[in-house]
Amino acid sequence: MYDIITRTRDGLGLSREEIRFMINGYTEGRVPDYQMAAWCMAVYFQGLSSEATAELTMAMVDSGEVLTWPELGGQLVDKHSTGGVGDKTTLVLLPWVAAAGVRIAKMSGRGLGHTGGTLDKLSAIPGFRFDLNRTEFIQAVEEAGLAVVGQTGNLVPADKKLYALRDVTATVDSIPLIASSIMSKKIAAGASRIVLDVKVGSGAFMQDLSSARLLAETMVDIGTKTGRRTTALVTNMDQPLGHAVGNALEVREAVATLQGSGPEDLTELCLALGAEMLIQAEKAETPEEGRQLLLQAMEKGLPIERFRAMIAAQGGDPRVIEEPELLPQAPVCLEAVAPSSGYVSRIDAREIGLIAMELGAGRQRIDDEIDLSAGLELLVKVGDQLQQGQVMARVYGPAPESVNSAARRIEAAIELIGSPTEPLPLILARVSR
Amino acid sequence: MYDIITRTRDGLGLSREEIRFMINGYTEGRVPDYQMAAWCMAVYFQGLSSEATAELTMAMVDSGEVLTWPELGGQLVDKHSTGGVGDKTTLVLLPWVAAAGVRIAKMSGRGLGHTGGTLDKLSAIPGFRFDLNRTEFIQAVEEAGLAVVGQTGNLVPADKKLYALRDVTATVDSIPLIASSIMSKKIAAGASRIVLDVKVGSGAFMQDLSSARLLAETMVDIGTKTGRRTTALVTNMDQPLGHAVGNALEVREAVATLQGSGPEDLTELCLALGAEMLIQAEKAETPEEGRQLLLQAMEKGLPIERFRAMIAAQGGDPRVIEEPELLPQAPVCLEAVAPSSGYVSRIDAREIGLIAMELGAGRQRIDDEIDLSAGLELLVKVGDQLQQGQVMARVYGPAPESVNSAARRIEAAIELIGSPTEPLPLILARVSR
Repeated sequence: MYDIITRTRDGLGLSREEIRFMINGYTEGRVPDYQMAAWCMAVYFQGLSSEATAELTMAMVDSGEVLTWPELGGQLVDKHSTGGVGDKTTLVLLPWVAAAGVRIAKMSGRGLGHTGGTLDKLSAIPGFRFDLNRTEFIQAVEEAGLAVVGQTGNLVPADKKLYALRDVTATVDSIPLIASSIMSKKIAAGASRIVLDVKVGSGAFMQDLSSARLLAETMVDIGTKTGRRTTALVTNMDQPLGHAVGNALEVREAVATLQGSGPEDLTELCLALGAEMLIQAEKAETPEEGRQLLLQAMEKGLPIERFRAMIAAQGGDPRVIEEPELLPQAPVCLEAVAPSSGYVSRIDAREIGLIAMELGAGRQRIDDEIDLSAGLELLVKVGDQLQQGQVMARVYGPAPESVNSAARRIEAAIELIGSPTEPLPLILARVSR
Repeated sequence: MYDIITRTRDGLGLSREEIRFMINGYTEGRVPDYQMAAWCMAVYFQGLSSEATAELTMAMVDSGEVLTWPELGGQLVDKHSTGGVGDKTTLVLLPWVAAAGVRIAKMSGRGLGHTGGTLDKLSAIPGFRFDLNRTEFIQAVEEAGLAVVGQTGNLVPADKKLYALRDVTATVDSIPLIASSIMSKKIAAGASRIVLDVKVGSGAFMQDLSSARLLAETMVDIGTKTGRRTTALVTNMDQPLGHAVGNALEVREAVATLQGSGPEDLTELCLALGAEMLIQAEKAETPEEGRQLLLQAMEKGLPIERFRAMIAAQGGDPRVIEEPELLPQAPVCLEAVAPSSGYVSRIDAREIGLIAMELGAGRQRIDDEIDLSAGLELLVKVGDQLQQGQVMARVYGPAPESVNSAARRIEAAIELIGSPTEPLPLILARVSR
């Protein structure tokens, strides 16, 4: 291991055998944390070759269980977002793509920090279960055309251990380590075709376009090298996606979007990612053809029906679609208004995510309880012209004090200037091989 | 600690409080090895400011006992070498400087790997004791004008723990970490004036002049910032110093040098370092004046008398001076001869050190036993003209096989070429503030 650290530190290559020795040794406790920490910091500074990054990914995959889905006919198309504020894309995208004829079997996670998680959002639906066993999961996919469950099995134990170490040694922020962590989990879960949504901006993990593009390229490269066809879109997270931030609120917004009346940016992102998924599933040859298939499904009202079927198949109450008041509702709602007239020039998306988290919509630590009803609806986007006193956001929470202070913080997180501003572009890059 | 790692990783400064928090926390087990390992690797890449390096040094000093020597009148002049092959400088330098009127109370260490240690060399003298208690140590200094003991007390526990960690995480090779490690030990041992011999070349830790100079500057800077006047000489270690490599053999050579008939390079180095020590002790104002004082002492035959007095005061048998056969003697001696005529162009000093170690003169691991009689005398220097068959070295060891194979390795470690070569310069730089 000493030699592996030295070679990495000096920017020399690592062999497949060295990487396997390291990852297996670390998973099984033979390589100590302190050597692994030094190695991670060396990678932070020196990077890893694309070959070594792919080998690292597969060594992590092989550290635990690897799922296969012969019942679903081989190819499994998966989608992953690097996380953002108000990112309820999965809730909309999967039923929509299922409505266009692709079977979806998805494993999702919970949220942490300023970003939310799909499981938390879906748990706002009364009765909804993620703890399906394999038979139930397959059955739900067959019944509804899609199903979303929590991660089961001992997938990628190397990544769990390594991520916990990186988290306390300031080595999270390394593109080859981020890329191999994400891709190892997708591959271990059985994905054979992968669409990635790499978010960039104030509400995302990646703060600048060049890093985000490099992360996207690195992941696409891992996919290519390991035989999993992968496409990535780099998308804007300089403002929350859609309006709703908070679990029950986001389910409502997802329902609206699945009915064709959702926010423009969310709808557009789902069309773009959905088109990529249709290409990966070999239902479409070009993004344009994919979009047409999705729009046709929407015209027929199919997406919301897939969502309804999924809720029913997973034990949830599908009446939430017509009666959103069945979702958890916060006792207090206050508005945040524009303190002056002007044009929205900047929204601090991370701050918006943190405000929602502190209202109870998210967790600071992994074992925090969340309040499914809490959150906010941000009604403005960069480029909007506002009048003084115009409502910018509605804030939902358990008590007037916290809701009021959240409203004040939202006002401060939105920058208004005197001269007109441009709306933000949504899709910044597409990376494919 | 996470923030400290991040700031170091990003090349930002660390405050005195942050450094104390880290070093105290690490010494007391609150900061885990893996965070410290990540920090060390971040320092490897980003370095540390000179202020932070000095703070780190003092935080390590304060992690354990700090010795003071009021009995010796306040100022304690110390000398440190970064280690080389055949480096018996301390054995010659200290009695010589003592002969010029400076009281010397020195703590020394044992050797490891291809470099030797002063305690091992002195232990070749029958009866010589290093385990003096404080009263005995002071008394020995007062009787003989100098004394050399092993390190006692719990000095710099932070460095012990940190060095062990660096050793297994490929982070030894960092100039601020090396410099603070060395200087913390000198300062904790009570040195107020410090002369450093930073060796550079194939037999030294530092392989190139610019790194060695930077290490010297960093240590002089630490000394200045912490109120310990420090001077460093950067000296050549591209060939062994003097001729002898091995403990008893080096004592014999030291005796010859203290009698004025030692190898030229060893004599010259002791004059240069001794002159610096006399300046530090305020006995001389310039290096030239220091040299004159040393040469005068030698003319009067004083240095060997200080050595004799030291041996006697520390329980050793001073007859070894006149009767070197009282020192351990190896049963087997073989010669290595020049395989062809030519000029010596290169000597692999590290290889010579390893050959001596494998003969038994040094330790591979900290708990290996050593053979005090084993070693070699290398009779040639770079620049010498040799005839085929001329004796290049005498090899001493316990058995004919090992001695014979060592002789063959020595022949291979000396490069002969057809055209004349230049002798190597000895003193490469002087660093002082």
